[in-house]
Amino acid sequence: MEKYSARLAKIQDWMTEEGIGLLMLEDTEGRRDQNIRWLTGHPGDALLFIPQDYASSLKTNNKAILAAWDINLAKLYASHAPAMLAAYNDFGRQPIKAIAAALQIMKTPPGSKIEIPSVTPYPAFLDYVGELSGFDILCRSNGAGVELDKLRAVKDEEEIAIIRKAADITNELIDLLEKNVREEKIKTEADAALFIEVESRKRGCEGTSFETLAAGPYRSFAIHAFPSWTYSPFGGSGLSILDFGVKYDGYCTDVTLTFARDLNPKQEKLVNLVEKAAKLAITMAHNETPAKDIAAAVDAFFAKSKKQMPHGLGHGIGLQEHEYPVIRNRSDNEWVLKPGMIFTIEPGLYDTLLGGCRLENDILITEKGQEILTTARIIRL
Amino acid sequence: MEKYSARLAKIQDWMTEEGIGLLMLEDTEGRRDQNIRWLTGHPGDALLFIPQDYASSLKTNNKAILAAWDINLAKLYASHAPAMLAAYNDFGRQPIKAIAAALQIMKTPPGSKIEIPSVTPYPAFLDYVGELSGFDILCRSNGAGVELDKLRAVKDEEEIAIIRKAADITNELIDLLEKNVREEKIKTEADAALFIEVESRKRGCEGTSFETLAAGPYRSFAIHAFPSWTYSPFGGSGLSILDFGVKYDGYCTDVTLTFARDLNPKQEKLVNLVEKAAKLAITMAHNETPAKDIAAAVDAFFAKSKKQMPHGLGHGIGLQEHEYPVIRNRSDNEWVLKPGMIFTIEPGLYDTLLGGCRLENDILITEKGQEILTTARIIRL
Repeated sequence: MEKYSARLAKIQDWMTEEGIGLLMLEDTEGRRDQNIRWLTGHPGDALLFIPQDYASSLKTNNKAILAAWDINLAKLYASHAPAMLAAYNDFGRQPIKAIAAALQIMKTPPGSKIEIPSVTPYPAFLDYVGELSGFDILCRSNGAGVELDKLRAVKDEEEIAIIRKAADITNELIDLLEKNVREEKIKTEADAALFIEVESRKRGCEGTSFETLAAGPYRSFAIHAFPSWTYSPFGGSGLSILDFGVKYDGYCTDVTLTFARDLNPKQEKLVNLVEKAAKLAITMAHNETPAKDIAAAVDAFFAKSKKQMPHGLGHGIGLQEHEYPVIRNRSDNEWVLKPGMIFTIEPGLYDTLLGGCRLENDILITEKGQEILTTARIIRL
Repeated sequence: MEKYSARLAKIQDWMTEEGIGLLMLEDTEGRRDQNIRWLTGHPGDALLFIPQDYASSLKTNNKAILAAWDINLAKLYASHAPAMLAAYNDFGRQPIKAIAAALQIMKTPPGSKIEIPSVTPYPAFLDYVGELSGFDILCRSNGAGVELDKLRAVKDEEEIAIIRKAADITNELIDLLEKNVREEKIKTEADAALFIEVESRKRGCEGTSFETLAAGPYRSFAIHAFPSWTYSPFGGSGLSILDFGVKYDGYCTDVTLTFARDLNPKQEKLVNLVEKAAKLAITMAHNETPAKDIAAAVDAFFAKSKKQMPHGLGHGIGLQEHEYPVIRNRSDNEWVLKPGMIFTIEPGLYDTLLGGCRLENDILITEKGQEILTTARIIRL
């Protein structure tokens, strides 16, 4: 498909500017990287080698080499990408052997700059340098990986359409979850989690974006309940949190509902603060707003009531459930919102005695302001 | 509990030998490390700082500092560990700020060796070196992380008892899955996957060890089906693969069943080869056997029939679904089997036309030989 060619061309242009001869991406256990899916369609467990255009001696139309752990899956999913497909097995399932072979196949000129993933562990970096003598090995926190992540942070029209579809399914599930909890058809955390597993896939989803977090009143004090769900009661007196997302055609949603019943005044206050914080944050989200300013405003709002949120305010969503931009109040956060960015806003407060409350929705930045794609809410039972 | 003290003491002894002043472990998104759970009981999203004994100026009985993202969860799960609990938030949720604080709290002498995780990316390593001047920063592929992983590769009696319990539940599920597929109560991949989700938790499991892979005849050609399960038919004519595990009290099982119906001669041959390979491998698994030899024997066995297995033969299981020892045929695999090691043996063959077949069981090495903890099998319908 043309989209893969266009995406590869973008990063190759960047490589030309930076003088990079070969770029290696890695998606393996413990080092996941959805950029490979974004560039080829292949869902994972693979290495991708991208040459600078001039260096490519690959057959016509092949702009990259995809070394896939499962070559059968690669033939199915990456067939539209302009990439040569190889079995990772042919390189002994060793990244260094694979990159050495890629350099040979592509006839990369000696002395070229070779960029490896920014998450490459320091000891592995030393191995690459040792094995690939004659090349200049780059491993940078602001290199190609971040460049790709930045490209992905602004969604194109096709991606926005897919996420809208994922959001529609999410919203349908939210309504059904509310109905079923009200009618006491969902009475346990398990009921809620399994309902989402079944109903998301029935609507064509690949699955959930992450393991659903369902925490009834006894467990909602935790930011991320552990275990993620049990057979404990859900939706009874107090605060119950339900954090879930669906994955449609690779793209994730991520929302959190809080179910509230028979609240005492302190719990009411917690819920009201979270609702107001969400509104404040969303109202601030516009083209050109620094993400840090929004998170700082929410922190300041909570501080007025002597409350502190123990996690970031939000994060981008896309092929990964957590991606750029980062919406948090930290001095090194330089993200500025742009049209096409899609991210969560998820203020939350947690108390071992009162329980927890979080409200999370997915926001699209537009030229004129923002659009709230999802309909998560505090549900008062 | 004493077990956490004993485990911390073991790694502190090793630190003394190696002259390490402070050890940092990290379990965060993208860099998971179950050593923190093994040493403290805390399930994750935390940093752990362990001083060499002499350097500790912590209050009595505190052998470490646990900086947890969710302090409420830490109070619940790490209450038996001899560790001081801190909120990660207090360090701005930044590892470098947290380690700087830990060095101060512990009064670690300037010039001490500080070991950070072996998976620390090269750019982050440079940041640590820059920020922690006056200390000697170590990041080694054969350092403390591997030492802990090696300690964990041999399970103690309590761990073996927990895994036996997890295996019993797994075996109960295997029998029920066979029964339900035979009786056509399980007819789709979704039926199988959801059955496991529900029935494992009903039996007290934390959840599954990983997302269940259920692949009917049209999808079993893939090593790991993508998506992991769908509403496609399961158990019909041809080969269906079901790869799952349960997590009980933190410990994982990992098994794969193949369901076979109306096989043609080529499919029969595939299945027979896999069954024989499993038997060959398990028979070879004894105290002192080099793991590589077993994997090499299976590769040679398949090669006689001109078949090649596209993945490793097996891997340790424990708090992680993949841990040491590694059972694969690679020159750098130096693992030798010892009593107390628990690992999978999982030969498999895959063909785009015939489908795939894998048979995976969990094996415990004993003084006298081996014990097969699980009852996965080829189920001929």
